[in-house]
Amino acid sequence: MYEFERKKEISQAVINRMPRYYRYISDLKRQNVARISSKGLASIMGLTASQIRQDFNCFGGFGQQGYGYNVEKLCEELENILELRRNKTAIVVGVGNIGRALIKNFNFHSSGFRLIACFDANDDMIGKSFGSVTVQNAKDLRKFVAYEKPDIAVLTLPKEMAVPISSMLVECGIRGLWNFTNADLQFDGVPVENIHFSDSLMRLCYEVG
Amino acid sequence: MYEFERKKEISQAVINRMPRYYRYISDLKRQNVARISSKGLASIMGLTASQIRQDFNCFGGFGQQGYGYNVEKLCEELENILELRRNKTAIVVGVGNIGRALIKNFNFHSSGFRLIACFDANDDMIGKSFGSVTVQNAKDLRKFVAYEKPDIAVLTLPKEMAVPISSMLVECGIRGLWNFTNADLQFDGVPVENIHFSDSLMRLCYEVG
Repeated sequence: MYEFERKKEISQAVINRMPRYYRYISDLKRQNVARISSKGLASIMGLTASQIRQDFNCFGGFGQQGYGYNVEKLCEELENILELRRNKTAIVVGVGNIGRALIKNFNFHSSGFRLIACFDANDDMIGKSFGSVTVQNAKDLRKFVAYEKPDIAVLTLPKEMAVPISSMLVECGIRGLWNFTNADLQFDGVPVENIHFSDSLMRLCYEVG
Repeated sequence: MYEFERKKEISQAVINRMPRYYRYISDLKRQNVARISSKGLASIMGLTASQIRQDFNCFGGFGQQGYGYNVEKLCEELENILELRRNKTAIVVGVGNIGRALIKNFNFHSSGFRLIACFDANDDMIGKSFGSVTVQNAKDLRKFVAYEKPDIAVLTLPKEMAVPISSMLVECGIRGLWNFTNADLQFDGVPVENIHFSDSLMRLCYEVG
C-alpha cells in the first residue's frame, strides 16, 4: 500500500534525477563527508538548494533545518527509494562487444542488480566465461527465464532480434528491459530503459553545429 | 545567418526527437519505401500525426498535403538538419572495454562522424590497432587536438580523469564531448552528451519495483 502510494505521487522528472543525487551522495560518503547542507549539495551539483529540498520532500524530507543532510543516512534513503539493495537479478542477452564490455566492467551491483547469467546464439561464444558468468546457449533462454525468474534482461543482441526475443522474455515473465539495441520496444507494465548511442551522438552532431 | 536563426528557434525537445525520426526514416529508405503519410509514420512510431507535422514544421515542413513525405527526400532533409554529412571528426580517449567496443562496432559514420584517432595511457595498449585506428600515446593527445582540430572527443577513460582531460581538450579547441564517464561535465559553449549507464539502470531498478 505504502509502495503503491509512493510510486503514484512522484513525478517521472523527480525519479529521473534520483540516480544523479545518489551518485553525488555516494561519492561524498566515499570521501567520508559526514553531512552536507542543501546549499552545499546544490553548489556541487549545479542545482538550487530549493530544487533539492523540493525533490527530497517528495520522499519525506531527510534533512534537518540548520543541520543539513546526514550523508550516510541520505545515501541509505536513496538506496531504499531506488530499491538498490533488494538483490534484483539481471541476465545479459547477446554477448557481443557491448555485452562483454558490460559483463566485464559494469558494476551491476551498485545499480541494484546481480548478474546471474548471459546468453548468446553463437557456438563460438557458448561455454566461455566472462567475470562470474558463463555464456549459455540462447536456445535455453526461454526455459531459464521461466524457471529462474530473473528481474530484468539486458538486451545487447542484434537489433533485428530485439522485438521477437523481448516479446518472448515478457511472455516468460521478465519484469524490465535494459535496451541497447536501438529498437523501440514497448510492453504494457514492463518498463524499458534505453541506451541509444546513435541518437545521443546525432544530437551532439547537431549541437556542435 | 540561416544557421543561426534555425538553431535559435527550435526547442531542445524537438531536436531530441529528430534522431529517432531519422532512425525510422532511414529504415524505411532501406526497405525501399518511397513515401509515407504523417499518419502512417505516426502509427509505426507511436506518435500522433499532428505531433509529427508540428515537429517537421519547425524545419519548414517537407510534406505535401495528400501525398505525405517523400522518404528519400525526408531522409536527406533530416541528414541536413542533424548535419550528418559534414564529415565531422571524432577521437576516442580511453581504449578500455567500452572504448574498444565503440571503436570496433559502433557506426560513427551514420551518426555524422569520422573516427580519426584513439588514445590511451596504458603502454600495453599503445600501438595496437582496432578497426581503422591505432592507439596513440595519451601524452600526445594535447598536441594532436591542437593541430588536427577534431570536432569531438569520446570520453571512455576512468572517471577520475574526466575533468582534467576534458578541461585540457576544451582548452585545445575541442567542440563537443561524448561522455561515458559518469562525471558531470560542463563547459561554456561546448556541448556534452552523456551516456549514463548506471543512472539508466538505477531508474529501471526503481521502475521494476
